[in-house]
Amino acid sequence: MSAEIICVGTELLLGNILNSNAQYLANELAMLGIAHYYQTVVGDNPTRIKQVIETAIERSPTDQTLVLLFTGGLGPTPDDLTHETLAEYFGVPLAEHPEIIADISRKYAERGRIMTPSNRKQAMLPQGADVLPNIAGTAPGIIWTPRPNLIIFTFPGVPSEMHRMWRETAVPYLQSHGFGQEVIYSRMLKFWGIAESALAEKVAPLLELANPTVAPYASLGEVRLRISTKASSPTTAEQLMQPVEQELKKIAGINYFGADDETLASVVGKLLIARGETLGVAESCTGGGLGQMLTTVSGSSAYFQGGVISYANAVKTALLNVSSQDLETQGAVSATVAEQMAKGVRSHLATTWGISITGVAGPDGGSEAKPVGLVYIGLAHQSGTVQSFEYRFGATKDRALIRHLSSCTALDCLRRQLLKY
Amino acid sequence: MSAEIICVGTELLLGNILNSNAQYLANELAMLGIAHYYQTVVGDNPTRIKQVIETAIERSPTDQTLVLLFTGGLGPTPDDLTHETLAEYFGVPLAEHPEIIADISRKYAERGRIMTPSNRKQAMLPQGADVLPNIAGTAPGIIWTPRPNLIIFTFPGVPSEMHRMWRETAVPYLQSHGFGQEVIYSRMLKFWGIAESALAEKVAPLLELANPTVAPYASLGEVRLRISTKASSPTTAEQLMQPVEQELKKIAGINYFGADDETLASVVGKLLIARGETLGVAESCTGGGLGQMLTTVSGSSAYFQGGVISYANAVKTALLNVSSQDLETQGAVSATVAEQMAKGVRSHLATTWGISITGVAGPDGGSEAKPVGLVYIGLAHQSGTVQSFEYRFGATKDRALIRHLSSCTALDCLRRQLLKY
Repeated sequence: MSAEIICVGTELLLGNILNSNAQYLANELAMLGIAHYYQTVVGDNPTRIKQVIETAIERSPTDQTLVLLFTGGLGPTPDDLTHETLAEYFGVPLAEHPEIIADISRKYAERGRIMTPSNRKQAMLPQGADVLPNIAGTAPGIIWTPRPNLIIFTFPGVPSEMHRMWRETAVPYLQSHGFGQEVIYSRMLKFWGIAESALAEKVAPLLELANPTVAPYASLGEVRLRISTKASSPTTAEQLMQPVEQELKKIAGINYFGADDETLASVVGKLLIARGETLGVAESCTGGGLGQMLTTVSGSSAYFQGGVISYANAVKTALLNVSSQDLETQGAVSATVAEQMAKGVRSHLATTWGISITGVAGPDGGSEAKPVGLVYIGLAHQSGTVQSFEYRFGATKDRALIRHLSSCTALDCLRRQLLKY
Repeated sequence: MSAEIICVGTELLLGNILNSNAQYLANELAMLGIAHYYQTVVGDNPTRIKQVIETAIERSPTDQTLVLLFTGGLGPTPDDLTHETLAEYFGVPLAEHPEIIADISRKYAERGRIMTPSNRKQAMLPQGADVLPNIAGTAPGIIWTPRPNLIIFTFPGVPSEMHRMWRETAVPYLQSHGFGQEVIYSRMLKFWGIAESALAEKVAPLLELANPTVAPYASLGEVRLRISTKASSPTTAEQLMQPVEQELKKIAGINYFGADDETLASVVGKLLIARGETLGVAESCTGGGLGQMLTTVSGSSAYFQGGVISYANAVKTALLNVSSQDLETQGAVSATVAEQMAKGVRSHLATTWGISITGVAGPDGGSEAKPVGLVYIGLAHQSGTVQSFEYRFGATKDRALIRHLSSCTALDCLRRQLLKY
């Protein structure tokens, strides 16, 4: 068995939108272990859609089942032609489904609206096709076997509707028909403070494994290793992945910070909650980005008290007790100022920890002594100890990336400190 | 003439990455007015790549020029096979280009590294093909006319390298060969504080225009109208677009805030600079997001002084002089507290304006009286006046969106205030 993804929509050909549907379905097919060799994008044009169907059928071995996954072209407007074109290609008429009309008018009524005549079009499906229900929207899809060894699924182009229809109906259908019994299970391990190449070198033998496989990824300073295995149950998968995961964590040591949905902010939050400790931030070049990152975690009020955005030097002295003399002699971007900022915010907010960021985010404001990308992070504890860390992220990085790396690195500094004791 | 985009890469078939290259090229082709009916994704597999070339050639009218744009498969590893496969398909040998080897080894030397033997592979191009230089990376592409009415371009999969090669070499080549002479010019007008449907209704007659065209978009609370026209020069384009732009701005009134690269943060910044005024922020549910948004603008230190992240009530009283009695009786999410926060930060930072945000970002913490999505924005001026605004963004929106809308809306409140006087 193999699958092809066919995305229908002139907006894709005009480059108006990113084809996230193809990525979603491709990833899902990989998880189900269903082979998938081609993806096609075509406009809302019956002749060309038929041409694409023809090509897909021709290049699939005749003794194997081909699954065609269509997205888009199910809406109520005249340019939505996927179902009409499929019916035409396979030489069957369209059949009206009263239950779809009832469903659409019910959904419109719930929103206080009245169904328009154009919606009736959405109830016309190729004769013989089953309805693939759309809980979240008005456009249903189809599951259809117009000839032996050919299964057609259609989905609307709206990603949230498509995802739900795929998970709730298409996957169970495929599995009940004997496809995708062995599912790919995976876990994403996340690392900070080590380059992708350095980590890959350390774990090199594990990257050669056949089952489970381990693959590295890197994005915006975060390095990831994805452990994947094909198995018939979560338990079998766990048995295969567990020892590899343990080994990877052992090798990476403190550079490993979390898995799957965990983030530096959520991991730091868990550590603080476990210790009953609190945190305040003092931000200069990040301008609030660290606080924003910490508060993406719902429930962060348990440990995050708040902080001071000391973008101007006057705010550093007025609200954080930074010495104006040090600002003058050392400059705002210095270890001394970072330490005073961290100390100041910790003491004003009476938190366990105070963490600060001051740096040159660019593109302007760099000098030879203090180039763009130079960032100091300060870390103060209620015991009175205060430390600072110097980072040089590099002047070729853009403002947004330098600010992102600064906030993540500040969280990572605290994480390492919390794991020390 | 028409073009097809062929993206080569098993990582695309596995769903590991989003196909942003296809969107980029699709949009560029639309701008150049080059017809484009199909996009294909195929893995790093010579047989299947040849099948895709075959299909593309077959479905193109023989009397028209076909342009094939390949991305991916130009790297140094054995699975990078685009050039080899193209040479094979058209029955020519690969030819080594010493100038490419020299270029690659120079680039490696600059980074203090030595070229590996595998990089030599990148210097092997189909005989007869011209080099499409890659300034930013090591993998060059090709421009090749293997037979009449067929032009092939290849680009690496790395987006930044591909974009530059497209702009600097491919586009001038196409234009010097008579294609894409009439370019699509467009301007994106941006609006805040009006729903897409409401704006579309107001400007309905203009949405029917044939040249220039006007099309609405909406994303995360921001509504956009894109004015596009096909013209042979920027001046002609401007003459066509100007009157429509003026009309749209007139109809939208204060809801229009900027065009193209402008953001609410940059527009507010310009207004403050023009008036020589300054700003401080006091943030609760956004946790620093408003400050972060303001400081994405390079040069924002001219007007943005900083602020207080008063996530905990203790910080609201200690650093912003919010009355603890009001916190108790009215609650942290209230008009009174928003006003006191704005006043407090303005007075502590001695700025012209103080702006505050307090709300229920969810998913927890909502009640019947104060549901998820309820947000108050406070606005204080040095004259002593202070106002507050209540918003109900709706409990079905997620935490990230409610926080984003809160920060944008706060900027928009200030923008409207600044435009009043």
